[in-house]
Amino acid sequence: MAQGGGPTAVINQSLMGVVLQARKFPEIERVYGARFGVSGIVKEDFIDLSIATDLNLEQVANTPGAALGSTRDKPDTAYCEKMFAVMQKHNIRYFFYIGGNDSAETCRIVNNEAKAAGYELRVVHIPKTIDNDILVTDHCPGFGSAARFVAHAFVGANLDNMALPGVYIGVVMGRHAGFLTGSSILAKKFPDDGPHLIYLPERSFGEDRFVADVERIYARYGRCVVAVSEGIVDEKNELVAVRLQKEKEHDAHGNICISGSGALGDLLVDLIKTKTNIKRVRSDTFGYLQRSFLGCVSAIDREEARAVGEKAVQFCIDQDVDGSVVIDRVSDYSVSYRLAPLESVAARSKSMPADFISGDNMVSEKFVNYVRPLVGEIEDFDRLSVPSVDKIN
Amino acid sequence: MAQGGGPTAVINQSLMGVVLQARKFPEIERVYGARFGVSGIVKEDFIDLSIATDLNLEQVANTPGAALGSTRDKPDTAYCEKMFAVMQKHNIRYFFYIGGNDSAETCRIVNNEAKAAGYELRVVHIPKTIDNDILVTDHCPGFGSAARFVAHAFVGANLDNMALPGVYIGVVMGRHAGFLTGSSILAKKFPDDGPHLIYLPERSFGEDRFVADVERIYARYGRCVVAVSEGIVDEKNELVAVRLQKEKEHDAHGNICISGSGALGDLLVDLIKTKTNIKRVRSDTFGYLQRSFLGCVSAIDREEARAVGEKAVQFCIDQDVDGSVVIDRVSDYSVSYRLAPLESVAARSKSMPADFISGDNMVSEKFVNYVRPLVGEIEDFDRLSVPSVDKIN
Repeated sequence: MAQGGGPTAVINQSLMGVVLQARKFPEIERVYGARFGVSGIVKEDFIDLSIATDLNLEQVANTPGAALGSTRDKPDTAYCEKMFAVMQKHNIRYFFYIGGNDSAETCRIVNNEAKAAGYELRVVHIPKTIDNDILVTDHCPGFGSAARFVAHAFVGANLDNMALPGVYIGVVMGRHAGFLTGSSILAKKFPDDGPHLIYLPERSFGEDRFVADVERIYARYGRCVVAVSEGIVDEKNELVAVRLQKEKEHDAHGNICISGSGALGDLLVDLIKTKTNIKRVRSDTFGYLQRSFLGCVSAIDREEARAVGEKAVQFCIDQDVDGSVVIDRVSDYSVSYRLAPLESVAARSKSMPADFISGDNMVSEKFVNYVRPLVGEIEDFDRLSVPSVDKIN
Repeated sequence: MAQGGGPTAVINQSLMGVVLQARKFPEIERVYGARFGVSGIVKEDFIDLSIATDLNLEQVANTPGAALGSTRDKPDTAYCEKMFAVMQKHNIRYFFYIGGNDSAETCRIVNNEAKAAGYELRVVHIPKTIDNDILVTDHCPGFGSAARFVAHAFVGANLDNMALPGVYIGVVMGRHAGFLTGSSILAKKFPDDGPHLIYLPERSFGEDRFVADVERIYARYGRCVVAVSEGIVDEKNELVAVRLQKEKEHDAHGNICISGSGALGDLLVDLIKTKTNIKRVRSDTFGYLQRSFLGCVSAIDREEARAVGEKAVQFCIDQDVDGSVVIDRVSDYSVSYRLAPLESVAARSKSMPADFISGDNMVSEKFVNYVRPLVGEIEDFDRLSVPSVDKIN
């Protein structure tokens, strides 16, 4: 087993699910973890999880990050040949890979190459991503906890903005999908609470419309809280964040790096400062905090992350098939699990459905109902509820 | 009573402490809250906290932000005259102001102006600040919770950086004092955990030294996690963050605005990318999240924030004096409270003592012992503790 792509708050729950479940099957002799994803297989860099203590696994499961280390490597035929040579030496016949759609693509490639090379191997993709952009599955483990961070962050940002009014812009992760940015809606408790505007990658972002939107909200409330996805695109479908970059950085899967910089937030602040008379304009870029922060986990997300790891082993061994673990929402709120073909989830990414979006700067009630159970109850907060004192003439 | 300056996670605890305690004294007929700090007094914009329900107060106390609203106004003689005219109409004779050193300065000015104008008024400053830079007091309510956020953020950032190695730079608030940035040290559990380098406003920051420091750590661990204060200054004592600004923004107290932008983090990333061969370099600017995030509060900080509000009322009425509430650390760990003269805390700010700092890029063990009780226990996290699998030849 190995982990790929960006870590989440609960990816180690899935790791633990695989380890604990795999130990139950007599046909599995040892459970090895490859360090730093598929690159650890090529390097024969394994740790023996068969003998991990339950306490250690339990503690690591509650730890954010990817305990085995991660990678963004994308294997080709030569890479896979090296993997199989190492696997054969250790008689490795099951490969569980926890990751997003790029990791699902890695699973698909490894699976096809194994067939072509005549290497007997079962490959199961275990979903994780904070972006929630994996196809087929209702939602992805990792998303609920990141969404919880975003919602709690916007509760605080909104309260801060009420105390010192102005414009606040929070930039949220999400390359192609607005699920995480949209989750900021859960911060609203009172009708005038922010976020007042939510910009998603699924709708084109126009600078003039943005300025007009902010001015309209500011005129109504004397303040404005905005949630913006790092992946917003302009009318030409070009990433707004990328226009700002001097030097473009890509990973092996061809993804351009747009995180780890405050430039988009700063650009939007400059826009408002330049084109309006609003004085106090601030932005935060939530960055890596939203996927790694210690102590902000959704209980449902934690459970489901464990479950997809357990189910991956159970399905794969019981049914002797490859695939990607899928979560189906069967009621509001319960789920069931199944395996889908690797081809159905690999490489491509899911966007927000049109009926989750309202206009070009808000999410719909349907989205709120979709996301609320995944995030769990927001911690309680309140306003003073007392009358104003009459002025004395 | 009113609130001034930047909100914190526990400033509303102090508000509640004042309200609940003030209601116990028969000489206090009503408890009014001024909206948006001293500006609410001038505008006669009061709410009647005398009749706030206990449940509502309790819920608001657990809410981040400043429930009364805040301001950065600095009163002069004319401003004070307007305040006294309004106060006189309502027979307001006690003024409790929750805020940082600028708010203490406001208290000092209001107190002096009241004496000069012959307006009978008791003025008490109730300390709060995430920067922990108020003089005399051992520490300030608000700091412990912000420090807890910073520590939890760096635990996650370090784990994320272990999974996908590179350089990570977290930019932390703190204009003149490094206490908050230094608190990142509490994220270290294992010897090779980050932050590996901590840059404080108290030590001059040299770009070449910074690059050399990062390269040294990177050579040793294959990765590097850095905590940087937004307030770092260069050899000429100029703010590094300010050099990047096109347009400088000041508040009424003469403070330059350096928060709400990711520019410093981006500058440091560019430095490392330009001057080293390290490919993966990321930065986060913690921004407003660290002072407003919902659900990350230190238990000690919450209690002490309540206590300084209660004590302010008790001292002021029992002893019939003005002053600023001070927390003395009497053992490891317990505290006592007293009033200090307003002049002793107003306007000026406290820096980290020299013995809290180690070299030019680390804090000392003495600082760790100072800060640990204020932050409370960091949530548990762990690493996999299993042997590597032998390579097969």
